[in-house]
Amino acid sequence: MIILGIDPGSVICGYGVIEFYAGKLQLIEYGSIKVKKKNEEINQRLKEIFLRLNAVIDRTKPEIAVFETVFYSKNAQSLMKLSFARASAILATSLKNIMFSEFTPREIKKSVTGNGNAGKKQVQFMVRTLLKIQETPDFFDATDALAAAICYAFRNQIQSKTSKSWAEYIKNNPDKVLKM
Amino acid sequence: MIILGIDPGSVICGYGVIEFYAGKLQLIEYGSIKVKKKNEEINQRLKEIFLRLNAVIDRTKPEIAVFETVFYSKNAQSLMKLSFARASAILATSLKNIMFSEFTPREIKKSVTGNGNAGKKQVQFMVRTLLKIQETPDFFDATDALAAAICYAFRNQIQSKTSKSWAEYIKNNPDKVLKM
Repeated sequence: MIILGIDPGSVICGYGVIEFYAGKLQLIEYGSIKVKKKNEEINQRLKEIFLRLNAVIDRTKPEIAVFETVFYSKNAQSLMKLSFARASAILATSLKNIMFSEFTPREIKKSVTGNGNAGKKQVQFMVRTLLKIQETPDFFDATDALAAAICYAFRNQIQSKTSKSWAEYIKNNPDKVLKM
Repeated sequence: MIILGIDPGSVICGYGVIEFYAGKLQLIEYGSIKVKKKNEEINQRLKEIFLRLNAVIDRTKPEIAVFETVFYSKNAQSLMKLSFARASAILATSLKNIMFSEFTPREIKKSVTGNGNAGKKQVQFMVRTLLKIQETPDFFDATDALAAAICYAFRNQIQSKTSKSWAEYIKNNPDKVLKM
């Protein structure tokens, strides 16, 4: 199963595509869409996010798109911008008939690290370990997107088994960790 | 010039298409997109608004899309839903390379009625008068969209002339009002 995680921000939209097969995670690609400064008009920003995600989808053919639930924002203006970016990303997936899924930040942290209150560094560490990713600036922008995708794989594919998180799962199943 | 006004709400999205030519307004079509109850998932709602507006655009080929500026909302949840619907509508237009324009509610009311604080009924009356529209439930949902489109025609085409609003313009130019 190919899973696309998306972390849409109004300036940077992170994404990560993974494959989950035979109990193993495999990274397909990740990256971040930084909206060009010249595209300051809202209609051009939305179009850029939409078209660039569209290209990712065409390339990787995911079956499911996974988002982190948004609850709040600092203020109305930033919530509006965030919602615009999110709607663009959701539309890019729904127009391709890709299934939609979302999890709270807590659910994502818990299923990735075992701890619903895990810090950003812990999440980054686990995502890197699970997917064998080098640290790059793009990786940091895509961490939350990859974590959302990893969360989906866990909750829908192996949650019913004995492990409570990916952290526990790979501890119990060292053969499931990809070799570098 | 063909002008598309859009009033995107999360449940009802009103739209109106008008033509402005030789100082006269002509109604092309108006209507409202009511998101089907079965489409409760956000990705399906956005898709429905997008696809139905897309059909309107393909049919009427507008050169410009006009929106009312949004400043506030009752609460974060409703602002988020409103922003989603708005982003869907904006994307439907920007992906077709239609120009984007927005005006504040005050600018729209002023250019339609002559009074920036006009009530809903005054706006409805002027929109009906200018476009020779019968009162229908669909008209009420589309009034704000039509008013935005009418505002654009006024501000970009005849504002430099002597009249301060459509109300004044048709008083001074009775020949510009369409016959029923």
